[in-house]
Amino acid sequence: MFKDNEQQPEGFSVPLSEALDNLAFNDAGLVPVIAQQHDTGEVLMFAWMNRAAIEETLATGQVCYYSRSRKTLWRKGESSGQTQTLKALRVDCDGDVLLASVEQTGAACHTGRRDCFFWKLDNDTARIDKSPLVDPKDLYDH
Amino acid sequence: MFKDNEQQPEGFSVPLSEALDNLAFNDAGLVPVIAQQHDTGEVLMFAWMNRAAIEETLATGQVCYYSRSRKTLWRKGESSGQTQTLKALRVDCDGDVLLASVEQTGAACHTGRRDCFFWKLDNDTARIDKSPLVDPKDLYDH
Repeated sequence: MFKDNEQQPEGFSVPLSEALDNLAFNDAGLVPVIAQQHDTGEVLMFAWMNRAAIEETLATGQVCYYSRSRKTLWRKGESSGQTQTLKALRVDCDGDVLLASVEQTGAACHTGRRDCFFWKLDNDTARIDKSPLVDPKDLYDH
Repeated sequence: MFKDNEQQPEGFSVPLSEALDNLAFNDAGLVPVIAQQHDTGEVLMFAWMNRAAIEETLATGQVCYYSRSRKTLWRKGESSGQTQTLKALRVDCDGDVLLASVEQTGAACHTGRRDCFFWKLDNDTARIDKSPLVDPKDLYDH
C-alpha cells in the first residue's frame, strides 16, 4: 500500500485501518519509532510500538510504546513522570518506521538526560557530551 | 560498555574501537541509523549501517549506509546525487541506535521528497502531506 501510493499527490489519503494493516511490523509485531521534540527538533529517543500502542497513542494523545523487556504496553512517563504528549504521528515511505512528534516533559532518557543520544563518535573516541537534567534515582525510586 | 558507563560525567570517553566493539549489531551485523538535517532538525530518513559503513562514514565525512536489498555498502547519493555530508555521529544510551547529523543535498527520500516521513496519521486516515522537491525519475534514470 505505501509503496503503491508513494507517487500520489499531497492530500491523498487512505483509511487509518488500511494503513495500519499495511505497516511492516516485524516478527514480534513491532515497528520502530523515532520520537522528536516538536518545536526544537531534538531527536529524543528510539523505541517500538505494536498496533495496540499506535492505536492507543492516536486515541489518547499520550505516547504509548511497547516495552520489549517487559513485554507489555509502556505508557511513557507512567513511572517516571516524563510523559510525551503527541503532536503528530507519521509513517515513512516504506511503511516500516514511525516518527512521533511530541511535547516531552523533562528527560526522555532513563539516564535523566534530555535525550538518549549522548555519546558522540569521532575518528578516535566515543565521548559523552551531555549531562543529566535530573537524577535518574528521582525518576524511578518512588 | 554503554550501559556500564551511562552515569559517567560529560567528557568521559572510550576509544572508538571499544565503542564499535560494543554496539548492539543485530544478527545481520547492522544497527539502525536516524538521519537528521543538522541545522533545521528535520528527521530525513531511517536506514542501517554495518561496522564498515560506520568506519567509512567517520573516515570520509560522507554518509555511507548498508543496503539491505542490495547487500552492499550504499554511499548515499552515489546514484542520485543527493549526498549527505556528516556533521556528527552519535550513539544512544543502549548502544543500539545511531543518530547521524548531516547536511542533506536536495531530497533524502527516493520518492524525491525532502524526507521519508510524508504520511501523517490521525484517528481516521493516513494522509500524504508533503510533495516531491524533484522528480524521482531525474534522480535515478541516468
